[in-house]
Amino acid sequence: MTEASPAKWHRAHVTWFFEEFVLRRDPAYVVYDESYRYLFNSYYEAVGERHPRPDRGLVTRPGVDDITHYRNYVDGAMEEALQRGTLDDEALDLIELGCNHEQQHQELLLMDIKHLFSTIPLTPGPLYVDRDPDPSRTPPPFGWRSVSGGVVEIGAAGTGFSYDNEGPRHRVFLEDFEIADRAVTNADWLEFIADDGYRRPELWLSDGWAHIRQTGRHAPGYWHFDDDGWTTFTLSGRRRLVLDEPVLHVSFYEADAFARWAGARLPTEFEWETAALAVDDRRAMLLDPERCHPGPAGGAMIGDVWEWTSSAYLPYPGFVPANGAVGEYNGKFMSDQHVLRGASAITPAGHERVTYRNFFPAPSRWVFAGLRLAR
Amino acid sequence: MTEASPAKWHRAHVTWFFEEFVLRRDPAYVVYDESYRYLFNSYYEAVGERHPRPDRGLVTRPGVDDITHYRNYVDGAMEEALQRGTLDDEALDLIELGCNHEQQHQELLLMDIKHLFSTIPLTPGPLYVDRDPDPSRTPPPFGWRSVSGGVVEIGAAGTGFSYDNEGPRHRVFLEDFEIADRAVTNADWLEFIADDGYRRPELWLSDGWAHIRQTGRHAPGYWHFDDDGWTTFTLSGRRRLVLDEPVLHVSFYEADAFARWAGARLPTEFEWETAALAVDDRRAMLLDPERCHPGPAGGAMIGDVWEWTSSAYLPYPGFVPANGAVGEYNGKFMSDQHVLRGASAITPAGHERVTYRNFFPAPSRWVFAGLRLAR
Amino acid sequence: MTEASPAKWHRAHVTWFFEEFVLRRDPAYVVYDESYRYLFNSYYEAVGERHPRPDRGLVTRPGVDDITHYRNYVDGAMEEALQRGTLDDEALDLIELGCNHEQQHQELLLMDIKHLFSTIPLTPGPLYVDRDPDPSRTPPPFGWRSVSGGVVEIGAAGTGFSYDNEGPRHRVFLEDFEIADRAVTNADWLEFIADDGYRRPELWLSDGWAHIRQTGRHAPGYWHFDDDGWTTFTLSGRRRLVLDEPVLHVSFYEADAFARWAGARLPTEFEWETAALAVDDRRAMLLDPERCHPGPAGGAMIGDVWEWTSSAYLPYPGFVPANGAVGEYNGKFMSDQHVLRGASAITPAGHERVTYRNFFPAPSRWVFAGLRLAR
Amino acid sequence: MTEASPAKWHRAHVTWFFEEFVLRRDPAYVVYDESYRYLFNSYYEAVGERHPRPDRGLVTRPGVDDITHYRNYVDGAMEEALQRGTLDDEALDLIELGCNHEQQHQELLLMDIKHLFSTIPLTPGPLYVDRDPDPSRTPPPFGWRSVSGGVVEIGAAGTGFSYDNEGPRHRVFLEDFEIADRAVTNADWLEFIADDGYRRPELWLSDGWAHIRQTGRHAPGYWHFDDDGWTTFTLSGRRRLVLDEPVLHVSFYEADAFARWAGARLPTEFEWETAALAVDDRRAMLLDPERCHPGPAGGAMIGDVWEWTSSAYLPYPGFVPANGAVGEYNGKFMSDQHVLRGASAITPAGHERVTYRNFFPAPSRWVFAGLRLAR
Repeated sequence: MTEASPAKWHRAHVTWFFEEFVLRRDPAYVVYDESYRYLFNSYYEAVGERHPRPDRGLVTRPGVDDITHYRNYVDGAMEEALQRGTLDDEALDLIELGCNHEQQHQELLLMDIKHLFSTIPLTPGPLYVDRDPDPSRTPPPFGWRSVSGGVVEIGAAGTGFSYDNEGPRHRVFLEDFEIADRAVTNADWLEFIADDGYRRPELWLSDGWAHIRQTGRHAPGYWHFDDDGWTTFTLSGRRRLVLDEPVLHVSFYEADAFARWAGARLPTEFEWETAALAVDDRRAMLLDPERCHPGPAGGAMIGDVWEWTSSAYLPYPGFVPANGAVGEYNGKFMSDQHVLRGASAITPAGHERVTYRNFFPAPSRWVFAGLRLAR
Repeated sequence: MTEASPAKWHRAHVTWFFEEFVLRRDPAYVVYDESYRYLFNSYYEAVGERHPRPDRGLVTRPGVDDITHYRNYVDGAMEEALQRGTLDDEALDLIELGCNHEQQHQELLLMDIKHLFSTIPLTPGPLYVDRDPDPSRTPPPFGWRSVSGGVVEIGAAGTGFSYDNEGPRHRVFLEDFEIADRAVTNADWLEFIADDGYRRPELWLSDGWAHIRQTGRHAPGYWHFDDDGWTTFTLSGRRRLVLDEPVLHVSFYEADAFARWAGARLPTEFEWETAALAVDDRRAMLLDPERCHPGPAGGAMIGDVWEWTSSAYLPYPGFVPANGAVGEYNGKFMSDQHVLRGASAITPAGHERVTYRNFFPAPSRWVFAGLRLAR
Repeated sequence: MTEASPAKWHRAHVTWFFEEFVLRRDPAYVVYDESYRYLFNSYYEAVGERHPRPDRGLVTRPGVDDITHYRNYVDGAMEEALQRGTLDDEALDLIELGCNHEQQHQELLLMDIKHLFSTIPLTPGPLYVDRDPDPSRTPPPFGWRSVSGGVVEIGAAGTGFSYDNEGPRHRVFLEDFEIADRAVTNADWLEFIADDGYRRPELWLSDGWAHIRQTGRHAPGYWHFDDDGWTTFTLSGRRRLVLDEPVLHVSFYEADAFARWAGARLPTEFEWETAALAVDDRRAMLLDPERCHPGPAGGAMIGDVWEWTSSAYLPYPGFVPANGAVGEYNGKFMSDQHVLRGASAITPAGHERVTYRNFFPAPSRWVFAGLRLAR
Repeated sequence: MTEASPAKWHRAHVTWFFEEFVLRRDPAYVVYDESYRYLFNSYYEAVGERHPRPDRGLVTRPGVDDITHYRNYVDGAMEEALQRGTLDDEALDLIELGCNHEQQHQELLLMDIKHLFSTIPLTPGPLYVDRDPDPSRTPPPFGWRSVSGGVVEIGAAGTGFSYDNEGPRHRVFLEDFEIADRAVTNADWLEFIADDGYRRPELWLSDGWAHIRQTGRHAPGYWHFDDDGWTTFTLSGRRRLVLDEPVLHVSFYEADAFARWAGARLPTEFEWETAALAVDDRRAMLLDPERCHPGPAGGAMIGDVWEWTSSAYLPYPGFVPANGAVGEYNGKFMSDQHVLRGASAITPAGHERVTYRNFFPAPSRWVFAGLRLAR
């Protein structure tokens, strides 16, 4: 999968971020290796030419040990710089951004490892986490929460860290709406499949129908049907489907078709944020290195699984990207992507926020992504 | 270009629409040729299998005369049905939709002819309209119109015909904004080119930058530079660039990059509609078969050139597609497309509306599409 | 199909050949239209830039009438030149080459028309020739003819016209061999299918197996199976399979797999030519405009169907292409193509020769191509 | 590059060969891991489904240590079987084939490592062999050796090991010919470049010209031009071009175009073998692990660099593949490939033979391949 990167690349790239944007500000800093700038820049045009993404998997040198050495070198330089106490506010802001950037890549790394492990044709395959199976229970029916509309405020208020794409805080008019009190579960999805959800064009966006016809998709990512029924691949290997878990690894197209089938729709990101504020202090599963998998679908809106919204990923009114290369962090991806809200069971705790805007193209499935209904 | 269709296909398809959705409602109607249903269905899944779009250009049979015969047959049956006076309201609504559908295809047909003629390597090439060149004048600088925000009403009120995607009428919150009092002109675009607009990644969305690098695009569609300067291809053949005309045949990516270069942005479709209501009764150039080309950029917002907005093409709150196959008319395309507003110099008069939502994918350039700045 | 060209292109191209290589030799000749040189050059690099082959189908101008006018113009100029009697030997040779070139395109034109007609989803579809069905009889078993080897002479002796690739005449050592006394028939092919010929990888070349897996091919080109059994598409429309006709429209891969299944092999082109010399004065079906289809498989080796050989298309020892642009006629295609020998039921009479080397890439199927076994 | 495989895959695959074809013959043998059969089968259809080749690079498990363990396990079982002394002749033949198979992969492994190292954007890059630069001398002009033709015998006589594709030994008629007394050198190739060899379509096969236009190739593989002139990549890193070395890493297309430019041609594989027999006991550079690179072009025909011939890779008269899965070793690749003769500086000593037929598709360049002229 060309979107995925090797583990060592992720490690080198988050290290490079600190070297490029923080350490290089000091003319006395001795760069570790100039060629790393080319190898480990992901997409910053302002920094210069980059190694092509699909070739990342082919770079056998520098090796794992070289990257560890690079990491130690940059860590040492960062510690020294912090201890000198001479870093200006801009540098400190960039360090905060670098830490958040690294948290993001922790999630990407787990997504990529899951995908890679799923492709290895060994039985048993490799385990990232060794743990017992979860019990599978029929989930109770979900209920609707009513939310009042009107002119609401959306976006980050600017207290504490947030990405540039979460602001400026601004007003949006919402009609009254209802939103489900839990995410869609695997049990719900089995009903969709049983009702020929993947075979009825009237349920699908035109692009989505073309996509599933071309790819032959007929179930969420990692699902597999055999004599004993449905299984799914997890970071603990292939497992029997757990009925009351939120469905994972569906594309935007699938989420949208499911909602139409259910006589409902996806919430807009503005509805989602407004609804989530009422349950803001509750968290579903965030990253637990001993688990790396959601728990049963419950009432909290942040955690377990990213939720596709119906919103296209667009700039908020008055959005201005940051100056310099880091201004490329978010803004330039604002076309033909779709917003996901919440967080997932592999999002590091502390990285999640009610105003957080995650985004991916419509067909993406290696994200820990599900959905919640609205109407 | 796989998006384009032959003229005879357009003619057969708009004819088929009346046969499929109006005439077939009468069990006594004798279908002209069952195989035409397969050949001339464009994208209605509910109607059955379709001939693949990229193969349209290869169908040498039925020929031009066959299609004329088909048209006459269906026209006769329609007249008869109308004269009998037994058509119910649903049928009459479908006829109104069919007429609007045909107007849409009149514009598509001219877009396709323009593209096709532009590829023919003869000198002189074929002319669709034979007319004298327009004078080229330096356009006056544009001004900004201020528009007050607040909660505004958007969408079709339901009096008179409109497409389903123009409703329901609903409320949107807008901040105060300013919008340019004319479209961006060819003269403006020459400044963008001269200022290396196509070579500065910081001006472009990531997808847009990848797109122009891959395609080598470095000027609007149909533009060509030779010893005597810039020319553009028109339905009257290749012509010297007219400075004060609205720029035509730019993609969403180009429109977005230009706006960023100009220190402005594209308006949202809600801002556009709100601003246009004030000048609603004024029209720029609509389809004049003796011209098929915009006039100089002026104050009216509807006509001359479709204007890219910053809005993704999404359903309005409460949107419900029509029942049956015609429900596929608009709704199922609501992903990864971008809204254009206004109308163009090849839009049939009477087809334009201030609430009209045109939509195309971001890279499209064979549309008569330009832009207007906002801030 | 990108290998096919429109009928009018073929007509213009064979006309262009005379203009380009004969008429332009006279400085007084007034070229009909300079842009035709770009449009109707097929592959002669030495002549200049060419219109891309896959776009040929899109050129609506010049139209059919324009091409007729062009043809008349060139015909007139040719007649005049011939009557003046001032053409030198090189010009006369080029005229002979031009006539043979035109005969080749007569066959290509019929191949292209057959393919095009086969794609038109009308019932009944268009007919090129309206004629009664042939009777279908079980063919008698074939026999083996023994041919003695030794050092044989291969290639055109240089008396009468031949293409450059048929010479120089040279010596080849052959072992004794046997060759079938008729081509493989449709009846034979049905046995191959019934014996799972398309499902047994051990019968196929590696490239051939990959090709049929990727394309899903499971029968010769134009064959179709329905409730009433197998049909094939002909220039007289879709017809019930005639058992004793030579199989048509098989690729090199299919021919090779069939031969392996039959415990035999394809002949080399040298074996084929040596064997054919004994029956040289007999002809199977050549082009009959009222038929355009083979008759029952018989004893003559030239006619009915081109026969794939096991030989790669390579230069004969001492081969030297002609001088100038016509030197590109044959030699530059001598890589990764396969030789077919004989002639087909759409080859114009007089164009066939026992030394004729036809050649196509291994997957090609729109050729009137079959096979004959050897061992 | 999808043709290349990771080092650990090569090691596992040559190990698997012994397990699959030798050890499994003993019903008592305990298979190491059934899933390895799927992972490390390269192309044997008769053995079952295979892991797709382009995904080989993605398999992070089994790891390098696992493969070493697998190797030790199979080595142990092989030693045991040999010591028991109960292996029948067929098994012993398969062991001999397995050893030759492993030698082949030793060469492929070095080709793949060279390619992989060349893509790593580090300065200095990784070295496979650390050694001093060779002196670069202007090579002396080459001379022509005359060889008498007539009916010659070609192919392996069956004494000692040879691959099935080297037989049966058979008679071929050759005209008298001349062959160069050394391979084409880098110095020769610089003349070709200087004379616009890559820009003159008349020198190229049609497929070859299309290929270099599409890929932009304008020099042999791994060559690079900078301020100090031409360098090439070697297993000892990037090095200044050595003038008197044989040119390496040219495609069949390039070899063929060079020969045409030189007023000569490539030899057929029959000419090559006949000419080489006279110098049969002389060897140029074969694999020296401390060098892995040719020496200066000299008089021996076997070693330094594989030499493209003009022959397509086809079965010899009477060729019959071996029984069972190993029958897939060579025969099924006999379409659209080109024969190379000789051996290269990374061919293990003892693996080379005067009748050896190497083969690759025309565009291949990661092979240690050059050419020798004939006329």
